[in-house]
Amino acid sequence: MSERYTPGMVGTTAGASVTSRALAVLDTFDQAHRRQSLAAIARRSGMPLTTVHRLVHELERHGALARGVDGDYEIGSKIWRLGTLASVHVELREVALPYMEDLYELGNDAVQIAVLDGLRCLIVDRIAGSRTIEVLSKPGSRLPLHATGVGKVLVAFGGDELQEAVLGSLDRYTDSTITDAATLRSQLLSIRSQGFAVTREELAPGAISVAVPLRGKGGAVIAALGLVSSSENAEITRMAPVLQISAAALSKKLAQSGLSEASRLT
Amino acid sequence: MSERYTPGMVGTTAGASVTSRALAVLDTFDQAHRRQSLAAIARRSGMPLTTVHRLVHELERHGALARGVDGDYEIGSKIWRLGTLASVHVELREVALPYMEDLYELGNDAVQIAVLDGLRCLIVDRIAGSRTIEVLSKPGSRLPLHATGVGKVLVAFGGDELQEAVLGSLDRYTDSTITDAATLRSQLLSIRSQGFAVTREELAPGAISVAVPLRGKGGAVIAALGLVSSSENAEITRMAPVLQISAAALSKKLAQSGLSEASRLT
Repeated sequence: MSERYTPGMVGTTAGASVTSRALAVLDTFDQAHRRQSLAAIARRSGMPLTTVHRLVHELERHGALARGVDGDYEIGSKIWRLGTLASVHVELREVALPYMEDLYELGNDAVQIAVLDGLRCLIVDRIAGSRTIEVLSKPGSRLPLHATGVGKVLVAFGGDELQEAVLGSLDRYTDSTITDAATLRSQLLSIRSQGFAVTREELAPGAISVAVPLRGKGGAVIAALGLVSSSENAEITRMAPVLQISAAALSKKLAQSGLSEASRLT
Repeated sequence: MSERYTPGMVGTTAGASVTSRALAVLDTFDQAHRRQSLAAIARRSGMPLTTVHRLVHELERHGALARGVDGDYEIGSKIWRLGTLASVHVELREVALPYMEDLYELGNDAVQIAVLDGLRCLIVDRIAGSRTIEVLSKPGSRLPLHATGVGKVLVAFGGDELQEAVLGSLDRYTDSTITDAATLRSQLLSIRSQGFAVTREELAPGAISVAVPLRGKGGAVIAALGLVSSSENAEITRMAPVLQISAAALSKKLAQSGLSEASRLT
């Protein structure tokens, strides 16, 4: 699913168009590589330094990249501003935010929404305050589907092909991560019938989560809404009905805004 | 300040590089033009339809643009995801969010942060719940500096050159918008000495706001933090000390994260 260019793929970018190469430069940036030197960009894109130098300079001139005081490059605010126009932002985040606020106020747990992005779940937004536990997810984070509440919801309500792909590769993150396909398969069935998913320290020690589906136009599940709390808050499942009521109200809004499965992801 | 290409600028893009032209395509998208046909993109970019067709197709192939069910194009989730890596997002929004949450809980007023972007203020984030008044600003919105609380703060603590540019062009939005340069000039002086700005229905009827500066490394004002409330809540100035305390705590965090005036905007 990834379009990352690796050093072994020089041949791929050598024949690629200029637009592809400019996007390949941007594509070398991710949460683990937010600031990079020219040399690092060249290495990660698999393109010659001279080519990268020219592309980076031009991207910087247009505000798509910015150069920090240390000389390293980062994604510029022009890209951020353009990104706020994407429907995942405007139609999902903007519509969901007031509902997320109300949920946050109720219990001061972290609230997040996520959509499917290949074999990961993409965190579209997260609300957290000073009384919230530290959570791993940030907007833009791509988390494993089988170890998060929002991810389990997306798989449980997803197609057979997605389920099989997820069940085929269950990485371990903690002692509690479900890595047995049969166990997860039966859990996915329960999630579908109950209408909510729970995780207990399956991605990070000390964190538990509960999540429910969000539906768009036509009733298709287009996203998941979840709470993340400290594992001391063992009664998290009592939040499931509250989440479901909130999700029902929000789903009506999303259906109105016309957000459907087709427009969900690029 | 705008890099928008207009139909009269065909000559500019004709000689431009492919990267520039691909960015010119993306640049035709803004909050008033979130979804556009190929013809509209060609018209707004000032480039021939055949060129635009090729560029759009390639941008779509890489997820930088997405095609909706109606055939129109919009910014794709790849650009959104890349945008979440920009420092305006990670270092300002992420650091500010918990403080914004606490302010929101206090009075259920809309809370927003903004940075200077040319002769506009760019809304970096906004928190609003179901009990908040409708506000015009969304993350990514670019609002007039002289008619918003956050904007007035950025001008009052900005350089002379910025102040003169702003004072030279005071568009009217409501009956209460300050369009007299001398009046605004004296208000900017008060804002600097008091440490906060107030607007009363100057951008939209029914809305009032209060805002304070946020400082980064070295004490420079890098952003503004503000509340927007219904104008029935006439006592908004009593919120200024609360905002100032919150801004002082947040500024310490921003200085730690190394966000300085230089890295503020691209």
